[in-house]
Amino acid sequence: MSKFISYEQSGVSIEANDRMVERIQSSMAGTFGPRVMDLPGGFAGLFRLDYDERLFKKNYKRPVLAACTDGVGSKVQLAAMMPKYDTVGIDLVAMNVNDMLTLGAEPLFFLDYLAVNKLEPEAVAEMVRGVAEGCRMADCALLGGETAEMPDTYKKNDFDMAGFAVGVVERRKIITGRNIRKGDVILGLASSGLHSNGYTLVRNICFKANNLKMTDKIDELDGAKLGDVLLEPTRIYVRVIVKLLSGYKVKRIVHGMAHITGGGLAGNIERILPRSCDAAINKSSWAVPKVFGFLQNRGPVEEAEMYRVFNMGIGYVLIVAEDFADSISNKLGHYGEKVYKVGRITSGAGKVIIK
Amino acid sequence: MSKFISYEQSGVSIEANDRMVERIQSSMAGTFGPRVMDLPGGFAGLFRLDYDERLFKKNYKRPVLAACTDGVGSKVQLAAMMPKYDTVGIDLVAMNVNDMLTLGAEPLFFLDYLAVNKLEPEAVAEMVRGVAEGCRMADCALLGGETAEMPDTYKKNDFDMAGFAVGVVERRKIITGRNIRKGDVILGLASSGLHSNGYTLVRNICFKANNLKMTDKIDELDGAKLGDVLLEPTRIYVRVIVKLLSGYKVKRIVHGMAHITGGGLAGNIERILPRSCDAAINKSSWAVPKVFGFLQNRGPVEEAEMYRVFNMGIGYVLIVAEDFADSISNKLGHYGEKVYKVGRITSGAGKVIIK
Repeated sequence: MSKFISYEQSGVSIEANDRMVERIQSSMAGTFGPRVMDLPGGFAGLFRLDYDERLFKKNYKRPVLAACTDGVGSKVQLAAMMPKYDTVGIDLVAMNVNDMLTLGAEPLFFLDYLAVNKLEPEAVAEMVRGVAEGCRMADCALLGGETAEMPDTYKKNDFDMAGFAVGVVERRKIITGRNIRKGDVILGLASSGLHSNGYTLVRNICFKANNLKMTDKIDELDGAKLGDVLLEPTRIYVRVIVKLLSGYKVKRIVHGMAHITGGGLAGNIERILPRSCDAAINKSSWAVPKVFGFLQNRGPVEEAEMYRVFNMGIGYVLIVAEDFADSISNKLGHYGEKVYKVGRITSGAGKVIIK
Repeated sequence: MSKFISYEQSGVSIEANDRMVERIQSSMAGTFGPRVMDLPGGFAGLFRLDYDERLFKKNYKRPVLAACTDGVGSKVQLAAMMPKYDTVGIDLVAMNVNDMLTLGAEPLFFLDYLAVNKLEPEAVAEMVRGVAEGCRMADCALLGGETAEMPDTYKKNDFDMAGFAVGVVERRKIITGRNIRKGDVILGLASSGLHSNGYTLVRNICFKANNLKMTDKIDELDGAKLGDVLLEPTRIYVRVIVKLLSGYKVKRIVHGMAHITGGGLAGNIERILPRSCDAAINKSSWAVPKVFGFLQNRGPVEEAEMYRVFNMGIGYVLIVAEDFADSISNKLGHYGEKVYKVGRITSGAGKVIIK
């Protein structure tokens, strides 16, 4: 993978570099399934589609690749502040795999791009460890990556990361939202916290308006350390959703799914809603986690703005046929998710109404 | 694609934003072949593998996906200095597709991640136009992308870009360098200039040591404008190499290929060289373009360092069976490449010797 070439030119001590490469290779290898082809030092990562003839002969008759890219925004700056480098990699994977998951695709592999001011072998190895951890949670391979040292672009201790995920979905099983119809039930899965959006606002509230420190213990959050709350990794919904979908081979009962990122519930559900439907969300149907109330009060931030910027406790949404709502909800609960019936689809004009 | 969501939150004027989205969509659409599935506003890009049953039934019996990621390093800073935003996208595509090409893979699709200080719609549209232009040159689809506005990470006018390419190769046709043997001929394809490596050194030489400006006309470069020379896009070798390889269906006569990036000829050829072989490069076998002499003199930079950092005029290398060297060289010349016989494979210990 190209990762290693950049490291070789980095100018850090040979031993530190060797240790880092060793740790990165070990992190990556921990995510390799049998379909990753070993190619040390190669110019690209290789992933077999034909492995054991199973994937493409049996499960996939008309395979469609799904691909997306995303970063974690300014959450990386909080990680740099702490410093704590081993969790934002999970966020990076989550932001990408949860996105592709909404189409019904299962992630196959992932690549990361890290850009730093100065290549600190320990920090980079920690970042990649987080990415690999995220990949394991999403059952995909960390197939490659690149680390760029750019002292003039990034300030001291600053860094950025971008991720790329590729998955596969059977063509007739692609979930677009097209089948959403009046009466469908909207199920919300609990988020693990802020996930990876709204961090410019978070930083304004915590550090500019309130002069807080990452090490402060926050009363409103039961004495939890601010840094720990803000860096809580984004929940990865891959395993439970892939398991759920694979249980309904014939009937299409999941009509639409949305990953709740920037834009909140409204912005993201609108992306999949047909023009003839509205989504009526009942905001008293779930308990908004304390971190959102804390930010809203400390801002202060208008409530409508909170719902536009943050997930407010719902990280992933499924819009399902009414008759199956209970069964799906039970299954997801059984798989370990906290599930809420957050609303209904009505006749309308493609709008999300939060009341 | 997730690109559009970010733009919607950007805070730039609605009209400027609409114009930008329109231009980006049009840039992307210009790269779409029939295998790209239209999914406006979707959470991920979709690419059909089964299209017309041709790809996977006929051309690919045991398809392997090849994937890589790379940035363009500090060349982006020169683009920001000019400013000239429409060529670094070509570099971005080139850095990725030329890498995967060395394995014998043909690119299928590409995604880009742009991170900026402030979302300037015109500049971003230009950047994406360059990426789309590069994708057209590499016969791949620009399937998606993300633009992140991160005012606290990136300085005013600064930006970074990362790219991600996915391609496919028939398993038994993967070119790893394993078959390289004594007597093989090393063919070099001319670069278009500096390509996308060594720009930290370039900037030190031009702006710190010599106080030059991007608009200066340089005598040693026949009066060419410095900015134009430094921003010349990286050559994309995809079409000629794919054409060449598809002409030899049975015999494996291309034993190894290398994309000459950071590390130069030695660093990159060593990545594919078996331990039992050396590569003897004769540096008088091609004319080093003037830009390298200019940088070397103005530095001054030691010659060995020049060969370690820059491509020195050779952007891509093929290591081929002796009996076919002339025929391959002629074909590549016929396809429009400038081809040099730059060396030979000898018995050795996995080293590249440049004399």
